[in-house]
Amino acid sequence: MPDLLQPSLAVAGVRLGTAAAGIRYRERDDVVLIELAEGSAVVAAFTRNAFRAAPVVVAAEHLASGNPRVLLINAGNANAGTGAAGLEAARHCCRLAANSLGCDAEAVLPFSTGVIGEQLPVARFGDGVPTARDALAADGWDRAARAIMTTDTRPKLFSRSVALGDHSATVTGMAKGAGMICPDMATLLAFVATDAQVERPALQAILDRSLARSFNRVTIDGDTSTNDACVLVATGAASNATIADLDTQAGAILAEAVAQVCEDLAEAVVRDGEGATKFIRVRVGEGRNTEECRRVAYSIAHSPLVKTAFYASDANWGRILAATGRAGLPDLDIERVDILLDDVLVVRHGGRNPDYQEELGAQVMARSEIVVTVVLRRGSAEAEIWTCDLSHDYVSINADYRS
Amino acid sequence: MPDLLQPSLAVAGVRLGTAAAGIRYRERDDVVLIELAEGSAVVAAFTRNAFRAAPVVVAAEHLASGNPRVLLINAGNANAGTGAAGLEAARHCCRLAANSLGCDAEAVLPFSTGVIGEQLPVARFGDGVPTARDALAADGWDRAARAIMTTDTRPKLFSRSVALGDHSATVTGMAKGAGMICPDMATLLAFVATDAQVERPALQAILDRSLARSFNRVTIDGDTSTNDACVLVATGAASNATIADLDTQAGAILAEAVAQVCEDLAEAVVRDGEGATKFIRVRVGEGRNTEECRRVAYSIAHSPLVKTAFYASDANWGRILAATGRAGLPDLDIERVDILLDDVLVVRHGGRNPDYQEELGAQVMARSEIVVTVVLRRGSAEAEIWTCDLSHDYVSINADYRS
Repeated sequence: MPDLLQPSLAVAGVRLGTAAAGIRYRERDDVVLIELAEGSAVVAAFTRNAFRAAPVVVAAEHLASGNPRVLLINAGNANAGTGAAGLEAARHCCRLAANSLGCDAEAVLPFSTGVIGEQLPVARFGDGVPTARDALAADGWDRAARAIMTTDTRPKLFSRSVALGDHSATVTGMAKGAGMICPDMATLLAFVATDAQVERPALQAILDRSLARSFNRVTIDGDTSTNDACVLVATGAASNATIADLDTQAGAILAEAVAQVCEDLAEAVVRDGEGATKFIRVRVGEGRNTEECRRVAYSIAHSPLVKTAFYASDANWGRILAATGRAGLPDLDIERVDILLDDVLVVRHGGRNPDYQEELGAQVMARSEIVVTVVLRRGSAEAEIWTCDLSHDYVSINADYRS
Repeated sequence: MPDLLQPSLAVAGVRLGTAAAGIRYRERDDVVLIELAEGSAVVAAFTRNAFRAAPVVVAAEHLASGNPRVLLINAGNANAGTGAAGLEAARHCCRLAANSLGCDAEAVLPFSTGVIGEQLPVARFGDGVPTARDALAADGWDRAARAIMTTDTRPKLFSRSVALGDHSATVTGMAKGAGMICPDMATLLAFVATDAQVERPALQAILDRSLARSFNRVTIDGDTSTNDACVLVATGAASNATIADLDTQAGAILAEAVAQVCEDLAEAVVRDGEGATKFIRVRVGEGRNTEECRRVAYSIAHSPLVKTAFYASDANWGRILAATGRAGLPDLDIERVDILLDDVLVVRHGGRNPDYQEELGAQVMARSEIVVTVVLRRGSAEAEIWTCDLSHDYVSINADYRS
């Protein structure tokens, strides 16, 4: 996974513009306008946190009521916990964008990310929105991916190009997020677009499938955000035969491309997790059902003791086994459990593998990418969660940053 | 809460001896023998982690089968994840103690705390157990409380003296534990004894009631230990009329004294939490039932973002509100939620209280003891959880210490 931004592919029917509105940051872009071609199909998933930020409420409302043509995003202020004034601020920004682009306010979906509990400085959108509109361009993805960052250290932007029958289509997506990451629907903010022609129900199915494989399997700190949103757009600018069914060849190809872009983005979010020094895949196999495999995987991925051990490159399998044991699985027989670090069998039958040598575990733990595999031996279900370690920098970032 | 050890009251019928057996540490005691008078009633609670250490398995077995006369405790090695050899090691140590004190091996309850996954160095108990036996004394509580420490920075030992009718009785207890603390039955290790005469079922009821008020409401890092155990002993050496019912005056008085000692111990464990700089009481009120109040309280108490904000003395109520919202309560209306920091109303109706001023929140956050109160306004149930903040030292301790 390169630190540098991959060259992004423009998506016909999508133009992006940015502006430095001074929402919170100085001398950097923090407002993004995304204009979608008429007739674009748009689907989205929002946080399941009962504490929903104002823009999430308004975006969900506008998505249900109309045909979205514009996405308006700001970084630096989440417009969350801001009450009636916050809702009015979100609606006001939608009207600004609508006036600027000549559409209804209901056609604008607003998104915010940043500090919680401060009123959105709406006046700063007065200049920012027209500036972003003037900058609209098909090649604006790179600038937009940078403008939505908060504690992120790197922009996250990925593209795939696929053949759908005789035509080609592009899928490009960007995401932001580095903390308060345990999406229960989508990660902090992710925007994915394709120029393929897709009917809305099929597009929703592609989104659902992609989320399960990507954003809904990552956790940095177990804290679900108030502003999570993932938007998937199909502009229909490509000439492919309209996709109405994922069981067709074209449907399957496009769904796979979208899922891969979402996986790339989700992985990039975890790799850029606050203070993260390692990328950990937690795989739990041979469970009775997927749900219990996910419970064990999250119990491990959320354990501060496991996460600090990874940070210290300490092959502390006892902490992994303890996190497995406390996941609350009924009748779990710990003496059937095996644990591997990459391909090293560390725990066998719930205890130290007699053939295991500390040097082998230490070699694995020194890596920056590690797979932890827990085998429950009580069924055939499996699950995989991606997470990172817990470092001094995580504490520094979150003790210093008001988010 | 003084850092210094309170003077402890001896409990008639209990003698404690310690020894420096070199289990893991050098030049400090790490083995404790506790001899209980014949006829003592003993009840205990053990971890609900499916991954149970060998001594937990053996102690539960011996408790069920016999009349415990001896508690054998070691620090430095948890004898967990050690398979059949670990079980045999625990049984071997019980036989050593039984030989040394002239009782059956089944009358010995073993307890271990320390590193997981290493075999117990049983040979070192060969000298340690007789040395501890030779040191048995009624005033051995202070030395014992120090000998069971691992990452603890302070011993935890508390006493209460009560009048039961015309007779007096004493309750003295000690505990250890500073990390892997989210007891689901009892904390890492706690031993409480009284000289009162109590029937076993009444003693069990006293333990259950005390746990609910103390160890089962604390969390440091959300990680439930493999070795949790809490033992309550009544030696019957006092001359009170035997307590068979907690609804009698004497029963109520003794139950309250035991609960207070357990509360003191549980609070001391949290205050000595790994890297802790603050003691936080999370109170959740006006919920539909106790269970949902506990869910919200744990969601807040386990949130790394909330804990780092407390460490930074940042009145970041947005993180507390976000943790409330993600607790998964059905139909939670976040717009009814109020949040107080001590007596400062910070959040009102799910948003910043218009009268709230940052200076007031900052004053509270600068304190070393803080009460967070979340009012759900959907019922009359309540719950309280005690926790600590998440500091750089937590990461250092757990990145450096193999536990």
